[in-house]
Amino acid sequence: MTLPDVSQLTLEEKASLTSGASFWYTKPVERAGVPAIMVTDGPHGLRKQREGGDHLGIGDSVPATCFPPAVALGSSWDVELAERVGEALGTEASIENVAVLLGPGINIKRSPLCGRNFEYLSEDPIVSGVLGAALVKGIQSKGVGTSLKHFAANNQEDDRMRSSSDVDARPLREIYLRGFQRVVEDAQPWTVMCSYNRINGVYASEDPWLLTQVLRDEWAFEGLVVSDWGAVNNRVRGLAAGLDLEMPSSGGVTDAQIVAAVQDGSLDESVVDVAARRVLDLVRKAIAGAGAAGGPLDVDAHHTLAREAAARSIVLLKNDGGLLPLAKDARIAVIGEFADKPRYQGAGSSMINPTRLDTALDGIRALATGEVAYARGFSNAVEVTDAETAALRDEAVAAARAADVAVVFLGLPARLESEGYDRQDIDLPAAQLALLDAVREANSNVVVVLSNGGVVALPFADRVPSIVEGWLLGQAGGGATADVLFGEVNPSAKLTETIPLRLEDTPAFLDFPGEFSHVRYGEGMFVGYRWYDARRMEVAFPFGHGLSYTTFEYADAATAVNADGDVEVTVAVTNTGERAGREVVQVYTSLPGSAVQRPARELKAFATVALEPGETRVVTLTVRRKDLAYWDIRVDRWVVEGGEYVIEVAASSRDIRSTVSVAVEGDPLVLPLSRNSSIGEVLAHPVAGPIAQAAIAQMMSGMEGVDAIMPEGVDATKMMLSFPIGRAGMFAGADSGGQISPEMIDGLIAMANAAQG
Amino acid sequence: MTLPDVSQLTLEEKASLTSGASFWYTKPVERAGVPAIMVTDGPHGLRKQREGGDHLGIGDSVPATCFPPAVALGSSWDVELAERVGEALGTEASIENVAVLLGPGINIKRSPLCGRNFEYLSEDPIVSGVLGAALVKGIQSKGVGTSLKHFAANNQEDDRMRSSSDVDARPLREIYLRGFQRVVEDAQPWTVMCSYNRINGVYASEDPWLLTQVLRDEWAFEGLVVSDWGAVNNRVRGLAAGLDLEMPSSGGVTDAQIVAAVQDGSLDESVVDVAARRVLDLVRKAIAGAGAAGGPLDVDAHHTLAREAAARSIVLLKNDGGLLPLAKDARIAVIGEFADKPRYQGAGSSMINPTRLDTALDGIRALATGEVAYARGFSNAVEVTDAETAALRDEAVAAARAADVAVVFLGLPARLESEGYDRQDIDLPAAQLALLDAVREANSNVVVVLSNGGVVALPFADRVPSIVEGWLLGQAGGGATADVLFGEVNPSAKLTETIPLRLEDTPAFLDFPGEFSHVRYGEGMFVGYRWYDARRMEVAFPFGHGLSYTTFEYADAATAVNADGDVEVTVAVTNTGERAGREVVQVYTSLPGSAVQRPARELKAFATVALEPGETRVVTLTVRRKDLAYWDIRVDRWVVEGGEYVIEVAASSRDIRSTVSVAVEGDPLVLPLSRNSSIGEVLAHPVAGPIAQAAIAQMMSGMEGVDAIMPEGVDATKMMLSFPIGRAGMFAGADSGGQISPEMIDGLIAMANAAQG
Repeated sequence: MTLPDVSQLTLEEKASLTSGASFWYTKPVERAGVPAIMVTDGPHGLRKQREGGDHLGIGDSVPATCFPPAVALGSSWDVELAERVGEALGTEASIENVAVLLGPGINIKRSPLCGRNFEYLSEDPIVSGVLGAALVKGIQSKGVGTSLKHFAANNQEDDRMRSSSDVDARPLREIYLRGFQRVVEDAQPWTVMCSYNRINGVYASEDPWLLTQVLRDEWAFEGLVVSDWGAVNNRVRGLAAGLDLEMPSSGGVTDAQIVAAVQDGSLDESVVDVAARRVLDLVRKAIAGAGAAGGPLDVDAHHTLAREAAARSIVLLKNDGGLLPLAKDARIAVIGEFADKPRYQGAGSSMINPTRLDTALDGIRALATGEVAYARGFSNAVEVTDAETAALRDEAVAAARAADVAVVFLGLPARLESEGYDRQDIDLPAAQLALLDAVREANSNVVVVLSNGGVVALPFADRVPSIVEGWLLGQAGGGATADVLFGEVNPSAKLTETIPLRLEDTPAFLDFPGEFSHVRYGEGMFVGYRWYDARRMEVAFPFGHGLSYTTFEYADAATAVNADGDVEVTVAVTNTGERAGREVVQVYTSLPGSAVQRPARELKAFATVALEPGETRVVTLTVRRKDLAYWDIRVDRWVVEGGEYVIEVAASSRDIRSTVSVAVEGDPLVLPLSRNSSIGEVLAHPVAGPIAQAAIAQMMSGMEGVDAIMPEGVDATKMMLSFPIGRAGMFAGADSGGQISPEMIDGLIAMANAAQG
Repeated sequence: MTLPDVSQLTLEEKASLTSGASFWYTKPVERAGVPAIMVTDGPHGLRKQREGGDHLGIGDSVPATCFPPAVALGSSWDVELAERVGEALGTEASIENVAVLLGPGINIKRSPLCGRNFEYLSEDPIVSGVLGAALVKGIQSKGVGTSLKHFAANNQEDDRMRSSSDVDARPLREIYLRGFQRVVEDAQPWTVMCSYNRINGVYASEDPWLLTQVLRDEWAFEGLVVSDWGAVNNRVRGLAAGLDLEMPSSGGVTDAQIVAAVQDGSLDESVVDVAARRVLDLVRKAIAGAGAAGGPLDVDAHHTLAREAAARSIVLLKNDGGLLPLAKDARIAVIGEFADKPRYQGAGSSMINPTRLDTALDGIRALATGEVAYARGFSNAVEVTDAETAALRDEAVAAARAADVAVVFLGLPARLESEGYDRQDIDLPAAQLALLDAVREANSNVVVVLSNGGVVALPFADRVPSIVEGWLLGQAGGGATADVLFGEVNPSAKLTETIPLRLEDTPAFLDFPGEFSHVRYGEGMFVGYRWYDARRMEVAFPFGHGLSYTTFEYADAATAVNADGDVEVTVAVTNTGERAGREVVQVYTSLPGSAVQRPARELKAFATVALEPGETRVVTLTVRRKDLAYWDIRVDRWVVEGGEYVIEVAASSRDIRSTVSVAVEGDPLVLPLSRNSSIGEVLAHPVAGPIAQAAIAQMMSGMEGVDAIMPEGVDATKMMLSFPIGRAGMFAGADSGGQISPEMIDGLIAMANAAQG
């Protein structure tokens, strides 16, 4: 099928292409042979409207494999695994004739309170960007498009359709946009979904800086920008800014606005052409990709992959005394409603109708050879009587007392986290904590298994020997949990977000979710571990942390700058334990004495390595030169500062195994001088400095009065170095002889700037 | 003498009036009989250039009484005392024919690192404003003007001539400007001094919003705005913005720019007239006030006042076991160089040439009847050998061992804090800490006396029984310290700034002093105790803390709203100890369930009360209604929110003695509706709500699909309340029957807004 060129379409047809026909379909242009295509929610499974469902097409969906949501999959730090999950997602979409799967979501977890954190990968942009790119590559390899979302700085649900994320340039670039840049540059998603919120007062859906200058001009994005559903505030402004496709349907209202704007001359028709052309390009890709994956769906194979991914996503937070893995013949008390009624995904647009659903209780029973008792322990229902609570607790205590080990499943009831609203605290329900206390008293061999989309406070962390962070693990999480508990799978996941001690410790605590539709990102670049490390704060479990049933040693870390200017870090990792295992190796960098403020350490590369007992492998991690750059607000661009960078090779952000360094050549940067350049800056300038030296020295020598009011041992003339050269007249004016006239200063500046081109 | 009207002056003469003749004098217009007047540095004493000094007139000054700098005087919380000190300052200025004393400085102590904190009063705007107003009233009562400085948001020395303080509207209004507003409205200083820095990108010296809209239009300031010395970036822009007088001389350069701008039409001559008229007004006030205080200077009387003020400024931080006051016949080891070589003021423009200088050592010897030994203990010199350090320490240890009590004077060497640069840490020198450890081992009866302009970390706080915060106490601080140590004066001062445990805990730690001439005030309103309380952090000593040699009980707290709408708080305070004493009573407010974010508590009123042993007095504190207001960013004005305010009557911010509440009626506030008003806001609107109710309910009832993807127990329609009404078409569009058309929405909005006027 050959699609028309935009020149063959009427203005009305072109405008009509740039908004949806319904909730999930674009508009066809039947006259010209342009078909509609279908897009569908994701990102960790397909949520395709079932025929004949509700009128919005939101509620009921065809069965699909529910893979682990991003909070879990991210914890795998496993690029290859993420790509394979992506391929499976692409296959399912292809089989269902879905052109674009609406994901992945890679927003930064700014606060643990964000109700949608379960859909996001990390508090770190490199983790988010690298794993996001892997998902995009996997999905798109099956001829199905992706929608990288939510672009950008959409880090809360509260008032999300209006709230302005007020972020300074450095955190915006270095934290909130960096992951998006990575995915766009590495994987070219077919579409990018602009977010609901505003950024520094401008709606993302109508921000030419965001959608055109940054996304296309700087990052070379080649695809289409689609609005989040209902994100269009002003359709004409959005189109002009670079928003190509409004979703869902506006009932034709905004198409007519576009036509009217062209007709009254306020919008150039070429703008409509560009957007319509991008929609046609997307349709063309969809047609070309259709059927690439074949069919029918291999439900078993995808369930098996979902179980593998889930097991790789489970983080062993604590395992004192080696209580885990469980002996298969142990007498086990399984306690807690989540074991039997799993929370395996979040609510909202990502909610999947799974093809099947495992429970941890069944998984444990399938692997255990000893007695397995189950006690519900507590109820997640909203209304529970005290008597019911007590009875459930008593039953659980009795079960724990009769067992060798109690495996207690705690977590967040579904109603506490969802798309659409944020949490108010990070606490587990009090009844669960009370249950745990009672169980611990009956049996100190307690393994806590957590089910939660956002991090929770763990006030019991010092009081139980073993904690397993199970997140939301998708439809096969139950079996995967059993695999890890019994050591069928040796856990290898690590935290991609810090677990804090208290909500009050978190970086955004004082300005989340903002007020009156403004939220100041006051913590700046210091998101997640960057904050806790800079302020030297205790945390419950640090970013990058995760245990294994074996142990790893790091040796012989070394660095080299390759031909591309990237830094290659090599380290020999040895499995020093008794079991095969995987290790997530992390590389953090810093630059002591930097001219700009920097976190104590920033993740710049990571890799996973699988090792048999006793095996050693040399792992190579590449720190891209561009990832060393900071955003320089003076010149509004990325700058790599020269210097001796510290390279930390680490098992977690607080478990640094080896520290080496590498010399990196900086980008050339000579700033133009002005009357507001400081005297110190003038003296340091390659051209102006030598010329001005004598005159400035003479001026300063006349300042003995300043010396007299300075403390002993302090050189007053040093302080004068911060004085703007244009105001030197204060000391060189009428009553001092005027060594430096305004004309001399202007001449010097002009000469210096001309010499630097 | 009758001064001319501006209409009698030439353009050149008017322009010439609006900048200085030299460092300290305005320009005369001899033809028209306008004399020059002299302005002189302060604020805690007169720093008047001695005839024949250095050419800038900075270094050498005539002797004047050095009263306690603001860091100390502020700790008195004593309005009457501050006014008396102001009167004495005014008298000295008057005797020296100084027209304007350049102070007080009331900038907020945003970070303990600011090198000029010793010149400022508090981390709280009410303390700063109330005490600042008292100083202004006192000085101006003697026919001498003041210069309220540094206006505004000048909270660091680093890059101070260029750095932009990037502050959001609420913290700017509620924290950084509130104190200035208080002083202007209550005391009408003759002049306000604009600061060096920029605010949100605009130089304070050329910001029409700051210098005209806020200062004059909102606050009704009637005086003159003078630049800080060298703060003028663009003279013409400054004049137009409301900067009346440039200081010091520009050598005529900028006067000529003004004349040229008028002549080329880019500046209206009326702008020059306004500034020149304000200069003439100031000269007129100076002439009228001249000689009001008589003379000559009563050096003894002012020294006595300086001693009284210093004693009232000393904060007894800790006194376990009642080690203080000292028995006069005790054997006392006085240790530490500061006892003999006091640090009594800071460096920079506020440095006074004192009329005399007391030492604590002499003061102690004068009051003691027992043996007083002195050991220098350490050296504040930059270069000290290890052998010297050891010898000094050994001598001190021997003295401590031979004594009943060791009084150890620790503090910051002068070079560590000054105008012109900031500190890098808040630590005392390591040699001093080591000395203290050695002395403690020899004698556990240790009293630490501190000399410091900015707060210091007190890692020894748990290990010594008594700590006296002596700040910088002015020329009579030595005697005052002895007065407090022996109980001649019962200490009554309290902290006007929090002493934190670590620099890393402080609110501005991660963005102080900023970079590339921008500093983000990321902590927002949460400055000082507002931060530590909101984040529930431990501190060394909290805001408002200070002990006495007696004890006080609070009883019968009550509130009432008076005819002005202010809240009157009464509380009965009883001296329950054996000595006469003074108590600083503090009132904090909060509003649970407020629509805006608020600190856990904010100081709104304070009072001091002197009580004989056993005496009870009812103290009345007035919380002004306007001080309950928050700055509403939606309407850009102050709004008092209605509700039940919590009133805490307290001995410190963490020693709440009584909690009561008071109902306050809110300001009327109905916001206009727009297409971006949320459905919830529309429903809550008095006019639109009832009309729209049925249509919105009908729309929401069609959203069963949304319910299906929400967690059990969560009402999806509630979430829809945050949806902008203008985008309701998403759910009410083509495929749902269009219950709410764009035209209906616009009509509803217009009707609602018209009805509200």
